[in-house]
Amino acid sequence: MKNFHILPLNDDLRPALQNKIDNLTKPKGSLGLLEEFALKVGLIQNSLSPQLRKPHNILFAADHGIIEEGVSVSPKEVTWQQLGHFSKGGAGINFLCRQHGFELVLVDAGVDYDIPAGHGIIDKKIRKSTSNFLYGPAMTVEEFNLCLERGADVVSEVALKGCNVISFGEMGSGNTSAASIWMHLLTGVPLPRCIGAGAGLDTPGIRHKLNVLSKALANYDGSGALEEKLAWFGGFELAMAVGAMLKAAELGMVIIVDGFLMTACMLAASVLYPEVGQYAVYGHQGDESGHKLMLEYLKAKPLLRLGLRLGEGSGAVCAYPILESAVRMINEMDSFEAVKVTKYF
Amino acid sequence: MKNFHILPLNDDLRPALQNKIDNLTKPKGSLGLLEEFALKVGLIQNSLSPQLRKPHNILFAADHGIIEEGVSVSPKEVTWQQLGHFSKGGAGINFLCRQHGFELVLVDAGVDYDIPAGHGIIDKKIRKSTSNFLYGPAMTVEEFNLCLERGADVVSEVALKGCNVISFGEMGSGNTSAASIWMHLLTGVPLPRCIGAGAGLDTPGIRHKLNVLSKALANYDGSGALEEKLAWFGGFELAMAVGAMLKAAELGMVIIVDGFLMTACMLAASVLYPEVGQYAVYGHQGDESGHKLMLEYLKAKPLLRLGLRLGEGSGAVCAYPILESAVRMINEMDSFEAVKVTKYF
Repeated sequence: MKNFHILPLNDDLRPALQNKIDNLTKPKGSLGLLEEFALKVGLIQNSLSPQLRKPHNILFAADHGIIEEGVSVSPKEVTWQQLGHFSKGGAGINFLCRQHGFELVLVDAGVDYDIPAGHGIIDKKIRKSTSNFLYGPAMTVEEFNLCLERGADVVSEVALKGCNVISFGEMGSGNTSAASIWMHLLTGVPLPRCIGAGAGLDTPGIRHKLNVLSKALANYDGSGALEEKLAWFGGFELAMAVGAMLKAAELGMVIIVDGFLMTACMLAASVLYPEVGQYAVYGHQGDESGHKLMLEYLKAKPLLRLGLRLGEGSGAVCAYPILESAVRMINEMDSFEAVKVTKYF
Repeated sequence: MKNFHILPLNDDLRPALQNKIDNLTKPKGSLGLLEEFALKVGLIQNSLSPQLRKPHNILFAADHGIIEEGVSVSPKEVTWQQLGHFSKGGAGINFLCRQHGFELVLVDAGVDYDIPAGHGIIDKKIRKSTSNFLYGPAMTVEEFNLCLERGADVVSEVALKGCNVISFGEMGSGNTSAASIWMHLLTGVPLPRCIGAGAGLDTPGIRHKLNVLSKALANYDGSGALEEKLAWFGGFELAMAVGAMLKAAELGMVIIVDGFLMTACMLAASVLYPEVGQYAVYGHQGDESGHKLMLEYLKAKPLLRLGLRLGEGSGAVCAYPILESAVRMINEMDSFEAVKVTKYF
């Protein structure tokens, strides 16, 4: 497997950071999560004056063989159609990226369509769709490792532009099925509690999805090795996001984790390299069943709860202004020493 | 009392707005609260393409006679010192206003200090501090009505600059005591559940505050008329915020309500003119005991829960980008009719 060198955060600066935050002109703790996140970004950057630069949202798209089993309301062609749509600027993630100054990077990780060149979509295609994991592995371990590498490569490119804060999104009809099984395998939470409506299944639809995924787990006859299991049930876009997150942490970036799917990727990344979680903040807690449980498992405090279930990185990008507020707080607020305001708390 | 002419929202456009939102290129409902708030702003502006223009945060400051009873950790001089500090740009509300493009308007509603001219602080002073409501009315009904008028005047001025989205904040050592009693009187929630730590009281401090406020209620011997009770226990900055909210609704502005104190003002405004609530969105649910109960009473869905307890309008201003996202969504996203993406939901 590709090696990543992720440093655990250096805690030496923590007292000085906390002291700086506590001496800003406000009652101690009164800026709540902004204070926590200022501390976190300060530790990640090992700086009393952390800065967020050139935010990017990398969106990985791929198709899933399991969709043949009717586990999604969204037909397969939606994956390539939406990827094309993102490249034209009129989708949900586009207005959010414009609003918050994010560069949107589109990656074909394994879409079942010949994506034409000239639309700015980066070609990292492994192949056209994973295989149907009801009957065998979705991808080989070699393909899984290739995904990690290619995801990492995309992040290395973006780092050259000066980016130090990054989020990831996905487009892939059927991909919540893969993520639900990853969650089940990595957390031990019973499968029914890992499964939700995806893009909009009704109750019989969810029951069918549970039935299919249970059978897929029963049919599994692999080695039981971690990477092999992630490959067996994974998606190309999800595995690439795992590699991208690991590289982002290696490069000391702040990672804003999106909803259910990207949280499952962060979970997988954390199992491979536990230090990666220290670089993560969680943008949004969605309504997808299981997301709350997964966040609790990761001891994550999501910044927003807006009922989003769009994917694409939307929840992460929406949360960016709160991170920016945290960083502005520590850089722009006066300290009690600097101004003549009575310190009473 | 000053009259306000607040129109109930015209619901005629609701089906067309909902139809527009449902036909944007996303699974129906998948942008959660953004969809709800796009509908709300569309109804307030009676437009399929609502716009947010020239956001302002009006911060009213005043002192409170009740502070003599030791109900706050924050000494009285903090009110004028912080007001001066806001005018210099280094406080919490300043960086948030800069970040989100808000104009900050500072108003002396009744600070116990001679605020020097030339710092951009608008003089609407009723007098230097309310009276101590433990022994009699904090202000007269005439003063209360003058507050409504002066608060309204500030909003009229701001409207001339093209503002159609507004938030309000406060600075006033001791003002959570006034707001807790308003909440108790207007909702019927038992007083102990309306009282919290304010800027940082410990448990004995909260017990003392409850004791003082209970005595003040027992000592009350007024007429029982609504305005008279609001005046008896009110604060100049709070009453001005009530008038400001009523005027903002009369002018068809979107009102972003801040935390506990401004929610108490919106509650009071709603009792005077029930239609005002239709113009309100709630920025932040804080940890101040009672805020959650008050939001439930108002059937409000707060946009953020970040553990803020700074006041100043900070929770409202922090929530602005989410409102902006809602408006961008309805204006910038493509519809299924406009692009060739399969509609599957």
